Amino acid sequence: YNMETENLSVVLHSQGDLRLEQRPIPETGPNEVLLQMHSVGICGSDVHYWQNGRIGDFAVKKPMVLGHEATGRVVKVGSAVKNLKEGKKEMDEFFKSGNYNLSPTIFCATPPDDGNLCRFYKHSANFCYKLPDNVTYEEGALIEPLSVGIHACRRAGVTLGSSILICGGGPIGLVCLLVAKAMGASQVVMTDLSADCLVMAKELGADFPLILKREDGPEGLAKRVEGLLGAQPHITIECTGVESSVQTAIYATRPGGVVVLVGLGAAMTTVPLLNAALREVDIRGVFRYCNTWPMAIAMLASKKVNVAPLVTHRFPLEQAVQAFETTRQGQGVKIMLKCDKTDQNP
Amino acid sequence: YNMETENLSVVLHSQGDLRLEQRPIPETGPNEVLLQMHSVGICGSDVHYWQNGRIGDFAVKKPMVLGHEATGRVVKVGSAVKNLKEGKKEMDEFFKSGNYNLSPTIFCATPPDDGNLCRFYKHSANFCYKLPDNVTYEEGALIEPLSVGIHACRRAGVTLGSSILICGGGPIGLVCLLVAKAMGASQVVMTDLSADCLVMAKELGADFPLILKREDGPEGLAKRVEGLLGAQPHITIECTGVESSVQTAIYATRPGGVVVLVGLGAAMTTVPLLNAALREVDIRGVFRYCNTWPMAIAMLASKKVNVAPLVTHRFPLEQAVQAFETTRQGQGVKIMLKCDKTDQNP
Amino acid sequence: YNMETENLSVVLHSQGDLRLEQRPIPETGPNEVLLQMHSVGICGSDVHYWQNGRIGDFAVKKPMVLGHEATGRVVKVGSAVKNLKEGKKEMDEFFKSGNYNLSPTIFCATPPDDGNLCRFYKHSANFCYKLPDNVTYEEGALIEPLSVGIHACRRAGVTLGSSILICGGGPIGLVCLLVAKAMGASQVVMTDLSADCLVMAKELGADFPLILKREDGPEGLAKRVEGLLGAQPHITIECTGVESSVQTAIYATRPGGVVVLVGLGAAMTTVPLLNAALREVDIRGVFRYCNTWPMAIAMLASKKVNVAPLVTHRFPLEQAVQAFETTRQGQGVKIMLKCDKTDQNP
Amino acid sequence: YNMETENLSVVLHSQGDLRLEQRPIPETGPNEVLLQMHSVGICGSDVHYWQNGRIGDFAVKKPMVLGHEATGRVVKVGSAVKNLKEGKKEMDEFFKSGNYNLSPTIFCATPPDDGNLCRFYKHSANFCYKLPDNVTYEEGALIEPLSVGIHACRRAGVTLGSSILICGGGPIGLVCLLVAKAMGASQVVMTDLSADCLVMAKELGADFPLILKREDGPEGLAKRVEGLLGAQPHITIECTGVESSVQTAIYATRPGGVVVLVGLGAAMTTVPLLNAALREVDIRGVFRYCNTWPMAIAMLASKKVNVAPLVTHRFPLEQAVQAFETTRQGQGVKIMLKCDKTDQNP
Repeated sequence: YNMETENLSVVLHSQGDLRLEQRPIPETGPNEVLLQMHSVGICGSDVHYWQNGRIGDFAVKKPMVLGHEATGRVVKVGSAVKNLKEGKKEMDEFFKSGNYNLSPTIFCATPPDDGNLCRFYKHSANFCYKLPDNVTYEEGALIEPLSVGIHACRRAGVTLGSSILICGGGPIGLVCLLVAKAMGASQVVMTDLSADCLVMAKELGADFPLILKREDGPEGLAKRVEGLLGAQPHITIECTGVESSVQTAIYATRPGGVVVLVGLGAAMTTVPLLNAALREVDIRGVFRYCNTWPMAIAMLASKKVNVAPLVTHRFPLEQAVQAFETTRQGQGVKIMLKCDKTDQNP
Repeated sequence: YNMETENLSVVLHSQGDLRLEQRPIPETGPNEVLLQMHSVGICGSDVHYWQNGRIGDFAVKKPMVLGHEATGRVVKVGSAVKNLKEGKKEMDEFFKSGNYNLSPTIFCATPPDDGNLCRFYKHSANFCYKLPDNVTYEEGALIEPLSVGIHACRRAGVTLGSSILICGGGPIGLVCLLVAKAMGASQVVMTDLSADCLVMAKELGADFPLILKREDGPEGLAKRVEGLLGAQPHITIECTGVESSVQTAIYATRPGGVVVLVGLGAAMTTVPLLNAALREVDIRGVFRYCNTWPMAIAMLASKKVNVAPLVTHRFPLEQAVQAFETTRQGQGVKIMLKCDKTDQNP
Repeated sequence: YNMETENLSVVLHSQGDLRLEQRPIPETGPNEVLLQMHSVGICGSDVHYWQNGRIGDFAVKKPMVLGHEATGRVVKVGSAVKNLKEGKKEMDEFFKSGNYNLSPTIFCATPPDDGNLCRFYKHSANFCYKLPDNVTYEEGALIEPLSVGIHACRRAGVTLGSSILICGGGPIGLVCLLVAKAMGASQVVMTDLSADCLVMAKELGADFPLILKREDGPEGLAKRVEGLLGAQPHITIECTGVESSVQTAIYATRPGGVVVLVGLGAAMTTVPLLNAALREVDIRGVFRYCNTWPMAIAMLASKKVNVAPLVTHRFPLEQAVQAFETTRQGQGVKIMLKCDKTDQNP
Repeated sequence: YNMETENLSVVLHSQGDLRLEQRPIPETGPNEVLLQMHSVGICGSDVHYWQNGRIGDFAVKKPMVLGHEATGRVVKVGSAVKNLKEGKKEMDEFFKSGNYNLSPTIFCATPPDDGNLCRFYKHSANFCYKLPDNVTYEEGALIEPLSVGIHACRRAGVTLGSSILICGGGPIGLVCLLVAKAMGASQVVMTDLSADCLVMAKELGADFPLILKREDGPEGLAKRVEGLLGAQPHITIECTGVESSVQTAIYATRPGGVVVLVGLGAAMTTVPLLNAALREVDIRGVFRYCNTWPMAIAMLASKKVNVAPLVTHRFPLEQAVQAFETTRQGQGVKIMLKCDKTDQNP
């Protein structure tokens, strides 16, 4: 390949100050590989850092490269690396064992660690996964959000015949839908305020798309969901973080069922906890995911899940600011930045 | 035995109106047994019905016999009953299979069903358990509250080496303590506003009794618990239902841990749900219990658990009103009514 | 409907002596319904009783009606029945709660209880399930074998991304395949001595049909399976009961994985138990199934699973002996007897 | 302390050739600590290597230091070590995360890796655990066998009220007994051919010590166990590896129960697999243990388990050969070698 002398990167300097700038191509150590990035998805958290300069306790204090939903091609291999070869496509994971998601750890594009929205990125070889030939770069980049869906559905205990309510039809709600169906869910109600979101939900397999109105009360909404399904759902996956939606999730779920909280809301939330407790509706949060990569690769390689329709827009890396602006406006579902000048294909 | 012609019963006519009165001895059907009641504990819910006339949606609309923590002696056996004999001591359960606690069902002393705080009570033979010889009547009567502890600890996943915070040192907190220790918990912190409650907690095995002050904030309290244990507890069992205590429970619990809600509070509760979700602290309620009787009998028969110290007061059935008054004032831990004139022993 | 005065039934008198004969239409009690049978599948166990007169300790000592994979139409409803109406299609289950499969119980066509391979059959209303409109009678009749697959896959812990070896491509192996795929299995190897069996396996979604030779050793076969999948399977579902196949199942399965024994073999089996123990490969049997009906109905109604191709032959009830002979010869997959003269459709 | 210039070690040169010899004190790297060994228990596997020169595929091909049940005092700390200090007592673990027991890994005194039966031993700081002040060195050394018991009881699902059969009253059977009781087991039957073994079993809490005769058949023995308990045990923990004992384990266990295989037997075993399968008695092996150290330390520090009586003999390191000979003859339960000349206390 023709190694470039420049490394165009999407750098957040501070709240609202997003720049495209050249950075040096990093030197790789003996256990690292250099990746020529191919496709990197824009995540809601990237936009949140850009607009707010922080997420919770994580504040951007110095310029940081964004991006963590990524795939690339190995272009240089450290001397001690045994599992990877140049020319193969790879995507990256962060840690491989145990419940690493609950430990303090390095995470791409979480301050102070740089992300991989750039031309060239070095990564520990241990945390790279080789993609099977029949999985595209973009599918590989979608493994990160798909992992959120896998982790949420596993925490929920989705299994054959589960009936499910998913609150919120954004990208995370949609990956939860895809995963739930692949795990055997028989019926899924999906709610959103926007009819547009629900068009894709329907295409991806939602049995009952349900458009909300702001005046719907949580208990009334729970009744409507029960009416659609013929019974309360076993599981509710809440992807909005909005207080009234968390309330709906509790009221709607069947005794002995599970509410999984994926959306992030305010620090304090007022909820019908007594209702949940007396009906033994468990409330479980998720923090990212763990041990999802091999399962996600197996799903993509075996075509159990089709994530390709999630990508609704593509921009070359040079138009990153415009891509971020499009994401901020809530257009489309998943927007991909194409980092490899010579290959802008999926 | 000398069958009496009268059946003295503790009857709640309406809110605040508790009476001792004679009722006919019931006729038993072919699948029923007649029990001469021996020891019946007073539960917080009995006092609550007396003081408030209702618990949630369950309202006392006609006179109802109180009492459901009960043992007695079989004095008459229906013609179709095979598993029981006259003269044996028995206690009763309500249903035996599956998650019957989550279905609408008959439950002693929950309107409209009469309880067993009386001299003679008929019961379905299927729902009676024979007590082993080395288990006393009072221990048998304590199986009901003990079951709450078993169900809570099972829902919590208590196991060998678990460290636990129990909020609230009343009878339910204390049975949770006994069960948690029997399941292998290594360290238990027990909190209460009353130093008196904590004296018995200490005797029953609590490693760290912790007296609360009303001005303690939830986060500060969580820190004190962590300080006592050297780490956050794996599990918190909340037995008060007080909002600030539920908040403490969430802040105090280790990432990946469990909060079990046993105490019943207000319909709506304001809690740090985001904190729980991001640290994957699961929130699980309990509704009574299910499938606990065989385990409870095994525990008592094998002396794995000593519930006898919980009984701090005894009253003959004739003094039932005084016994209820003593319970209402928060004196003692568990107060027993002795229903058999000829045998007032434990 | 036009109630007939006769009740043609398939009766096994003793080993090898299978007869078609008229029996009276049964009287129904207040909690029972009378079913006009529509489609009844022939199970391997039916043929086994016919050929051997017994299965294990269950011996045919008096004439017994065969058949237990059944659906019919309700034609008469007992006075106390509330959940069913005449004219609806129903199929039957046996008990609904808990692990009833492990208790001594009534089971159709297990001596001494009659099965339902006849024109009219009475059944306890509690054990009947109403079929949704979009589920055919034959699909309903296949819920019984499908339940074996569901129970086996649940015992195996099949989940998203599971890789699976299924030993034996008969009807039970095929329902395990269908269920495993519906639960998210990414890759399934299916083995059989017969190439014909594997044709349908391939059609129903098996990724790697593998024809065995009698001279294949268990360890060699395990290696071939590993070669096909690129790794040892997480789960092996053994459906033949043959000793060498059980050995293969153990050798083939990944450390920490599960072998499920569905096929029934000899009383004593020689297996590499040390190999299983040291690699923590768990060995789990199945006995029929429990609590699978609602899940199976949900699967069929939502079209998550397509069982229709399993039915390869249909015979009117009058040709029952010929149908049994066809089954005995190992022709086809699932053979249906059509019991309703006026409706021989699926 | 007074650092010695010599490092007396127990070295196995080849089958039958066990020697005491001086080895250099090892140099420690930046992430390592030097431990002055205090107490090291002799394990059955140490004796097995000595007598046979190998265990399965692991053969002694060059001189190897024996010993892996060990505690010592930190006497030197590598420059990069943060979690340990000189002068503290520590014991060692091998890996901390995930199911490391099922991966190829370093294990003390498994060829080709040296053990720690010596005066001075270097170890990775990450794999050392600090012992609480109220835990003795010998208790620390017993954490290794205790871990086998913890892992076996966890795999068995021991919980409150479990009834258990333990086959074999050697050191491993006894630690299983201690752990099972600490997890809430209500009744334990313990079998052995030797009455002597059962004396300690009784002292440590076995409810029913049962002396076997060689002529006892597996099914008869299973009946005797059922008679003692009044019902079949939920769980059987097999610690002998003898074929007839594995058969007994299967016959004895309750439907839906678990047999755990801890003892190691021959490569091929003939067992009543059909009996196990039809009654859904699961068969689970164990390979060492994983993630048991923190739980074991919590148990010892909280005095939930008293392992001290297991130590029946002590020898100074200089008499190691005599100590091995005593172990080989089956005398006592656990034999400790005292490696620190200046402190031979527990």
